[in-house]
Amino acid sequence: MATSGKVIRCRAAVAWAVGKELSVEEVEVAPPKAGEVRIKIVATGICHTDEHVLKGCFPNVEFPVILGHEGAGIVESVGEGVTSVKAGDKVIPLCVPQCGECSFCLNPESNHRFTCKGKQIHHYMWVSTFAEYTVVPEYAVAKIDPAAPLDKVCLLGCGFSTGYGAAINTAKVKPGSTCAIFGLGGVGLSVVMGCKAAGASRIIAVDINKDKFAKAKQLGATDCINPRDCQKPIQEVLTEMTGQGVDYSFEAIGLKETMIAALASCNMNTGICVMIGVPDSASEISLDPMLLLTGRTWKGSLLGGWKTRDCMPKLVSSYLEKKFNSDLLITHTLPFAKVNEGFELLRAGKSIRSVLLF
Amino acid sequence: MATSGKVIRCRAAVAWAVGKELSVEEVEVAPPKAGEVRIKIVATGICHTDEHVLKGCFPNVEFPVILGHEGAGIVESVGEGVTSVKAGDKVIPLCVPQCGECSFCLNPESNHRFTCKGKQIHHYMWVSTFAEYTVVPEYAVAKIDPAAPLDKVCLLGCGFSTGYGAAINTAKVKPGSTCAIFGLGGVGLSVVMGCKAAGASRIIAVDINKDKFAKAKQLGATDCINPRDCQKPIQEVLTEMTGQGVDYSFEAIGLKETMIAALASCNMNTGICVMIGVPDSASEISLDPMLLLTGRTWKGSLLGGWKTRDCMPKLVSSYLEKKFNSDLLITHTLPFAKVNEGFELLRAGKSIRSVLLF
Repeated sequence: MATSGKVIRCRAAVAWAVGKELSVEEVEVAPPKAGEVRIKIVATGICHTDEHVLKGCFPNVEFPVILGHEGAGIVESVGEGVTSVKAGDKVIPLCVPQCGECSFCLNPESNHRFTCKGKQIHHYMWVSTFAEYTVVPEYAVAKIDPAAPLDKVCLLGCGFSTGYGAAINTAKVKPGSTCAIFGLGGVGLSVVMGCKAAGASRIIAVDINKDKFAKAKQLGATDCINPRDCQKPIQEVLTEMTGQGVDYSFEAIGLKETMIAALASCNMNTGICVMIGVPDSASEISLDPMLLLTGRTWKGSLLGGWKTRDCMPKLVSSYLEKKFNSDLLITHTLPFAKVNEGFELLRAGKSIRSVLLF
Repeated sequence: MATSGKVIRCRAAVAWAVGKELSVEEVEVAPPKAGEVRIKIVATGICHTDEHVLKGCFPNVEFPVILGHEGAGIVESVGEGVTSVKAGDKVIPLCVPQCGECSFCLNPESNHRFTCKGKQIHHYMWVSTFAEYTVVPEYAVAKIDPAAPLDKVCLLGCGFSTGYGAAINTAKVKPGSTCAIFGLGGVGLSVVMGCKAAGASRIIAVDINKDKFAKAKQLGATDCINPRDCQKPIQEVLTEMTGQGVDYSFEAIGLKETMIAALASCNMNTGICVMIGVPDSASEISLDPMLLLTGRTWKGSLLGGWKTRDCMPKLVSSYLEKKFNSDLLITHTLPFAKVNEGFELLRAGKSIRSVLLF
C-alpha cells in the first residue's frame, strides 16, 4: 500500500484543552511500530465518556488529546510481527483490550503516535477514533466479519457492548427476573436490550428525560418512571412496585445519588447492582454499609465484561444475524466535520448515539 | 413434660439498658404458641455482635432485651402445628431463619415472650440464647444430630458458619486463589478455615493484635500481617505482595477504614470483597466509585449465606465427621453466671470464643 511505512496526514478532532470545543485539524499519524496496527477509521460514535473528558472530569487524561473510542474501520497497514490482522481487514479498535489484567494493561503509558502543528498529541483509551487514521497495539484490535456495516457496528466498540454485556455478563440476568435501569442513554438502553434478551419479565426504565421513554419501551422496557414525577425517593418507589426491590439494578449515568439509589433499589438479600456510569473522578460516594451487609452485591462493569478480542467478532456476527438491533440507538449520522454538533446534541439530551462518518 | 404449656421461670442475662453490664435475673418464659418452639438452651457463645448491641450501635434494638444468638439446646415443648421438631430433639436456634426473603422475615416484629420483674423483655434476632429457656418460631429452629456436643456446635449458630460460609458460599473461593482476611476474631478465623477448605493457595491474615497470629497459622493462614508494622497502607502492602491484589478479601471487623482497605486489596478486575463485620449503624462509608467500576465485586454476607434450616444439620454432620475443627475457636468455657466475664475477655481481645454453659 502506498501509505505503508509512511506518515499519513489526515483529519482528526483535537481536544486542545479542557472545556474547549474540538478542533478539526490536519494531523500526522506515525506508521505502526512492531506489534502495532494502523487503522483507517470509517465511522465513530460519540460517547458520554468523551464528553466527561472534555469537561475535565478525568485529570489523568493529558491534553492535547484525540478522543473517541467507539469506532470501526479498515486496517491500513501493520507493524512488524503483527499476525492477527492484515491490511484491508475490517476491525473494531478495542478501548478495553482483552488482556486487561497484565501489569502493562493496568499501566497504559502515554504513547505519542499523533502530532499536530509540531506538537505531540496524546492517545486516548488505546484507540483515539476521532481521527481518520489511528495506530493501536495489535492486542487492541478485533478483526470482524467483512460483511459488517462499519457505520453501524462502530457502536459495538463501546456503548452497545457496555450496556448489553452489563446485563448478560456482569449481572447475569436470569429469565423471569425484575430489572431497573437508571439512565436511558445509549448504554442504559443497551442494558434494556440485554435484560430483554436474557428473559427478564419486568424491565423498569428510569430517567428524568421522558423523551427517552418511547425508545426504551420499543427496546423492551415494561415500565418507565421519571423520578421527578414521584412523591418518594425512587428506591422506595421501585421497592413498592416490586415488593422487595428488583433483582438487578443498573446505574448508567455516573452520578453518586443514582448509584446509591440503584444499590438501594435491588432487594436486600440477593439483589445485584451493577455500576456502569463513569463518575467524575473527584466524587466520592457515601453509603450505609448495611445496604451491602444484608446480602446485596455491588459490582462494576467495564465494557460489559467482554473478553474483547474474542467476543467482538462474535458480537458482530450476532448483529449480522439480527440477534439484537443496535441500529435503533443511532439517532443521528453526521459528517466528521460536524463533531462538535454531535457533542451539542448529546449535551442537550437530543441524541442517543450520533455516528460520525469520515 | 411437666413444664409443657406452663410458664417457666429460669435464669437469663438481661440487658436493661445500653452500656450497662448484663444482669443475670430470674425471668418468666411464656409457653410456645402455635408455630413456636420452646428450647432449653444448653450452651451459648458470646459474639461481638452482642457486644455491639450493648454498646448501643444498633438503635433499632429495643431494651430491655435478652441477647445471645449463638446457642444450642434441646426442645422442651412445641406449640400447636409444629411438626419438624419435638420435645427432646437437639437443635440450633437460627438467628437468620431460612425464609429470609419473605416480607414477614424482613419485618420481624418485636415479639414479647419474656417477662422479668413484671416487665416485658424484648427478644433478639429471633433467638435470645442468653436465657435458659427461649421461645422461637419453628422456622428458626434446625434439628441436628443427637450425637452433637451442644457445648461445641453452638458456635455453628453464628460465628463459625458466618465466616466459613462467607468463604465457601458468598465468595465461592476457588482452588489456587489468594485470599486476605481482615480481623482474626471467631468469624475471621472461620473465614481462614473456609479459604483453606476451598483450596486457596495463599491465605493472608491481617490483624493489629499479633496474639491472634499463632491460631490463624494453625487454621491455615500462610502469611500474617500487622498493619501497624507496615510503612504503607495495608492495601498497598497486599497489592505488592500479590502483584495485582488478592482474588478474595474479607472484612470481619466492621470498621469503615478496613472495609475500604479490604475492597482496595482485591484486584481491580475480578476481585471479590466480602463484608461480614457489622458496623456501627451510625457510620457511613465514603469511597471512590472507581474502586468498583473497574470490575471489583463488593458484597455482604449474612450468616455465611447458608440456607439455615437445610444447612445447619449438614454443618453439624460435617463437624461430627471432622471436616473442620471449630473447637479450636473456643478459648474459654464459663458457667452462665460469668457472662460478664466472658464479655470482658472479648473486649480485652483475650478470647476468640467464650462458651457459656447453663
